[in-house]
Amino acid sequence: MSPPALSPKTQTHAFAGVFALLARQMAELERSLHGQLEAFEPEIRAMADYCIDTSGKRIRPALVFLSGWRGPDVVLPDLVRAATVVELVHLATLVHDDIMDEAELRRNRSTAAREFGATAAVLLGDALFAHALNLATQFGTTEVCAAVSESTRRVCAGEIVQTLRRGSTSVTRADYQRIIDLKTAELFRVSCFLGARLSGFDAGYAESASIFGRHLGIAYQMYDDLADFFGEEKRIGKTLGTDLASGKLTLPLFVLLESLPESERAALNEEITGRSPPQPALRLRQMDELDVYAAVVDTIDGELNAAAAALRGHAAPQLLSLADVLRAQVGNLRG
Amino acid sequence: MSPPALSPKTQTHAFAGVFALLARQMAELERSLHGQLEAFEPEIRAMADYCIDTSGKRIRPALVFLSGWRGPDVVLPDLVRAATVVELVHLATLVHDDIMDEAELRRNRSTAAREFGATAAVLLGDALFAHALNLATQFGTTEVCAAVSESTRRVCAGEIVQTLRRGSTSVTRADYQRIIDLKTAELFRVSCFLGARLSGFDAGYAESASIFGRHLGIAYQMYDDLADFFGEEKRIGKTLGTDLASGKLTLPLFVLLESLPESERAALNEEITGRSPPQPALRLRQMDELDVYAAVVDTIDGELNAAAAALRGHAAPQLLSLADVLRAQVGNLRG
Repeated sequence: MSPPALSPKTQTHAFAGVFALLARQMAELERSLHGQLEAFEPEIRAMADYCIDTSGKRIRPALVFLSGWRGPDVVLPDLVRAATVVELVHLATLVHDDIMDEAELRRNRSTAAREFGATAAVLLGDALFAHALNLATQFGTTEVCAAVSESTRRVCAGEIVQTLRRGSTSVTRADYQRIIDLKTAELFRVSCFLGARLSGFDAGYAESASIFGRHLGIAYQMYDDLADFFGEEKRIGKTLGTDLASGKLTLPLFVLLESLPESERAALNEEITGRSPPQPALRLRQMDELDVYAAVVDTIDGELNAAAAALRGHAAPQLLSLADVLRAQVGNLRG
Repeated sequence: MSPPALSPKTQTHAFAGVFALLARQMAELERSLHGQLEAFEPEIRAMADYCIDTSGKRIRPALVFLSGWRGPDVVLPDLVRAATVVELVHLATLVHDDIMDEAELRRNRSTAAREFGATAAVLLGDALFAHALNLATQFGTTEVCAAVSESTRRVCAGEIVQTLRRGSTSVTRADYQRIIDLKTAELFRVSCFLGARLSGFDAGYAESASIFGRHLGIAYQMYDDLADFFGEEKRIGKTLGTDLASGKLTLPLFVLLESLPESERAALNEEITGRSPPQPALRLRQMDELDVYAAVVDTIDGELNAAAAALRGHAAPQLLSLADVLRAQVGNLRG
């Protein structure tokens, strides 16, 4: 399957092409997610509903379904349940992320923190997470619960490291790689692992799918970090360079730092540490001049190639196609 | 076993008498708790250590050990592991509680939120909780993980309800009962359940121990709420009535509201909603005059009697003695 042609308008729905394959699975996922609400205490059910009922892309569930793909008409209940578990964990982390970022909006509506207050949002994220793990115990063995709880701890560890390094210029590219491996790639990895494993595929494929998921996750986070500087917001007037403003050293900034002359590098470091105000317009112009975009795309390509290589020898074209979709989405940032 | 005689000085260590029985188990618990650190990513290990290394009373682990009591020299690894799981969940909730309360100190040292910042503390609590559930998957079946994750969701639900009702005077005594049942009694209950179950006792005893734990937990929270108005702080000059100041309607305030004449009740309601400044000294005096203490003690006694009744017919004197210890501790609030 070749990646769908993408116009700038469909950029945010770039996964839609592959996801169209998953219509039945995704419908079951939504049913399953909403079916979880009755497990919540009546007093917090509406709040849990608010968190579940998003226009989220459901990428992690898609990874579960595509890794365990057995045809468009095969909807395995175990996959639906595992997809529900990983999505609930993801939604819980979003609830907590939005508290910390003091975000007001997510996908065009109030964040849970804004809607219910930060205190309730901390607890609501906890409750979502607790229920995700509870749902994971409905499998016959402890394997799913063990994999998901370990992944969750690693996601949190990645976010803690990222938080503690904000505004620091002693962060290395290796640190960055480690942070995104933990905070993003880990849940992608475990989603692919669970899909492959619960569909009854052999251990070799489950391992390969895990490696694919990990590299795809790393590439996805790099894409996301690139979009902070080169996103479509540029066209519609939104703020670019929020990572610079918040002192978060991401791949485009590493590349820029490495390309700038000494004096400019020192000035940019001052902006990252917050000792001088950020100059996103200047830095974006420099990124254009020094072709930071191309260098980041090269790195992303490397991850996507590693992802694809992991699936070599396995007949998993649906899963593999995600790498091409993401590649197209990256290309699309340049319009 | 009769409850140990308590002087005001030993009040905060009232459980020490029973806990002396548990010396070997508690030593194993501490070893197990610290042994968990290596499971955490190196970057967050020291932070996890900070949260684990408290002078906490370890009440929930004690409930596990006493419910599964087979003699002072019997240290069952399954009980140690279950005790570690419930204590980690409890520690995670404390980390999150302290963020929300903006507490600076817990047990005479900085809270995690104060030490590492609120953002890192949210994530650190998440990581502790994720690891607790991961440890729970080391049992042969999903039972422990299922019980603990469900309890955790209930604890969070209780705290959410409490948070949302702050400053509201439409809270009823039934609401209060429900909140403490969820936020405190639930983890007491599951601790007793796990201890009984993992020691291989019959299902009837496990059910009875669960009921004991639940009533003990309710009584414990009522004691804690009573101590907010009648604690030893009165003698050493600390602030009493913090629940009134934060608009939290607890049992002593319910009793006071029910005993006050109409006009005074309206004035106290204004203080709870924050429309007028709290007058803790006045309210404490009124509590003394109207003997609120005795009425609350009656209610606590009712819970402790229900706890004891649940164990009738079971030979569990060590577990049962906790009810007497708590009764003595309540009595001690009056010096």
